[in-house]
Amino acid sequence: MSRPPVAVFAIAPWAFHDVFPADLVDRLRQSVEVDATVTFTSFEGEAAARALAGAEFLLTGWGCPRIDAEVLKAAPGLRAVVHAAGSVKAIVDPVVYERGILVSSAAVANAVPVAEYTIAMLVLGAKRVFERAGHYAAGADRSAWQQGAGTGLYDCTVGVIGASRVGRHVLRRLRDFEVDILLSDPYVSPEEAAEMGAELVDVDELCRRSDLVTVHAPALAETRHLLDERRLGLLPDRAVVINTARGSLIDTEALTRACASGRVSAVLDVTDPEPLPPGHPLFGLPNVLVTPHVAGAQGRELRRLGEYAITDLEHFMRGRPMRGRVTAEQLARLA
Amino acid sequence: MSRPPVAVFAIAPWAFHDVFPADLVDRLRQSVEVDATVTFTSFEGEAAARALAGAEFLLTGWGCPRIDAEVLKAAPGLRAVVHAAGSVKAIVDPVVYERGILVSSAAVANAVPVAEYTIAMLVLGAKRVFERAGHYAAGADRSAWQQGAGTGLYDCTVGVIGASRVGRHVLRRLRDFEVDILLSDPYVSPEEAAEMGAELVDVDELCRRSDLVTVHAPALAETRHLLDERRLGLLPDRAVVINTARGSLIDTEALTRACASGRVSAVLDVTDPEPLPPGHPLFGLPNVLVTPHVAGAQGRELRRLGEYAITDLEHFMRGRPMRGRVTAEQLARLA
Repeated sequence: MSRPPVAVFAIAPWAFHDVFPADLVDRLRQSVEVDATVTFTSFEGEAAARALAGAEFLLTGWGCPRIDAEVLKAAPGLRAVVHAAGSVKAIVDPVVYERGILVSSAAVANAVPVAEYTIAMLVLGAKRVFERAGHYAAGADRSAWQQGAGTGLYDCTVGVIGASRVGRHVLRRLRDFEVDILLSDPYVSPEEAAEMGAELVDVDELCRRSDLVTVHAPALAETRHLLDERRLGLLPDRAVVINTARGSLIDTEALTRACASGRVSAVLDVTDPEPLPPGHPLFGLPNVLVTPHVAGAQGRELRRLGEYAITDLEHFMRGRPMRGRVTAEQLARLA
Repeated sequence: MSRPPVAVFAIAPWAFHDVFPADLVDRLRQSVEVDATVTFTSFEGEAAARALAGAEFLLTGWGCPRIDAEVLKAAPGLRAVVHAAGSVKAIVDPVVYERGILVSSAAVANAVPVAEYTIAMLVLGAKRVFERAGHYAAGADRSAWQQGAGTGLYDCTVGVIGASRVGRHVLRRLRDFEVDILLSDPYVSPEEAAEMGAELVDVDELCRRSDLVTVHAPALAETRHLLDERRLGLLPDRAVVINTARGSLIDTEALTRACASGRVSAVLDVTDPEPLPPGHPLFGLPNVLVTPHVAGAQGRELRRLGEYAITDLEHFMRGRPMRGRVTAEQLARLA
């Protein structure tokens, strides 16, 4: 019997055992040989060189160094990079594809908690729960927190900007709610949008018609300040803006003014700058909730990434397509 | 052609037009004759007597006075009470059933927003989002808000107390999440629980095993302080308690102590007393979010109740069973 192929971990120690707990390492060992006592956050040095020399798989995650020509030279047998986290953009150099190495990412699994957070904030944002809870806690007059007129997600129009993995998962979950859904995405056709339960519109129209807007676009030069002063001005009164993507997608100062005027509310898991400096006006507004970039996989949710990555490795071993396959073309478009 | 039967509104003015907006009244008029310029919050007086004398249907809601023997004497032609709100307990006297009048309630429709709020709070509570957002806003050290170890709903055990309408809807929605579900309800068999995706256990075991506990039991003498000091003590460290049902189900002082110690977190939409007096210690705890009884249908969500009630009236007119039928036996068990 031939020896099983060798896999090597390259993932930050803080995440390692949450992403790959002992029982998952055991499962992994039914497919590959792997040393679970070591994980690399640098590919320099002798230990890394020895590991790379025999590696057929890299099991990567947050903290993995960039896999470039130098690294590939040290890893002549490498067949696949299996990434147990979101985007591979930072770690996968295009040269990886030139060598014919397959790349898979657990971005779909990482999208789940972000979508769940988004749906939760749509429900609670539509009810103005945080604002009303704040008034209640502050001992404000009953009228400030009891009035529910115009609240509630039912029958609302929800605008989703970006049919990214998270955006698509949000769209799927939104089908459980009785809402009208608008989608804006330059790479999606009206027919594809309709299949996702949404009406395709441009960003301006989306802003004009949505009671709630949630942003799931990649952070690129052309999406910087996608929601700027002008577009925030298109939103209907009492609109709610949710950002779980990247802070640069929204003009923070314009949003701060719109929220300070009371016209718009916001739930922001990401900001620009991030972290938001202590005392920033957004922290003090009753109609704004800023959370410290927690929507993505954390704690127990990290295990889901490890499970996803191992399943893809198993698919590879059995000659099946990897579910999280990232092609060279997709890489170019990624955030 | 005979004249259509007559329906009469008995619902508080503040809710009337949100529950029955103009287009729903138009739809109603395809089945019954109804005067939408008047709604009764008292059945005394001449106008009420005249309306009741010809009424075959009462379309009721929040603020409807109790329908007792006196009212029934004035309404000899009454065939059904169609309630566009939650529990009918306060308004339907048992004598209504003795007269053979059918009763329907929109409690199922009212359960939807409560369940949606609950699921949202399970997602965010498991991530400790509010606590971490609070530390972030307060300019606390990064370690207070960046640490996600042990957070996240994935792979958690969620304990649902009470397979009420809300409880059942929560159980249905929880199937979208990868969690283990425990259920405690004296009227449910292990087989029924399994059909709902849950393992039936007693309340003590549920407390011992659940990372998050959500309460959906009726407020009865025997459920008062269902979660008392002893049972709160059974919860694992870092457990989250959610209450959208009734404040009396939890011993507020015991919960306050458990939360103040940092051992347990809570999201409370209902409290005992309610409203919670300004300055109550629960308002000041970073790991507690108190919201002002907003989980139920509000604002736009009120329309869903009207739609549900009208559909049931239409079912009745066509000789179909009403979906929200409340029997005399069910009434006795209701909260």
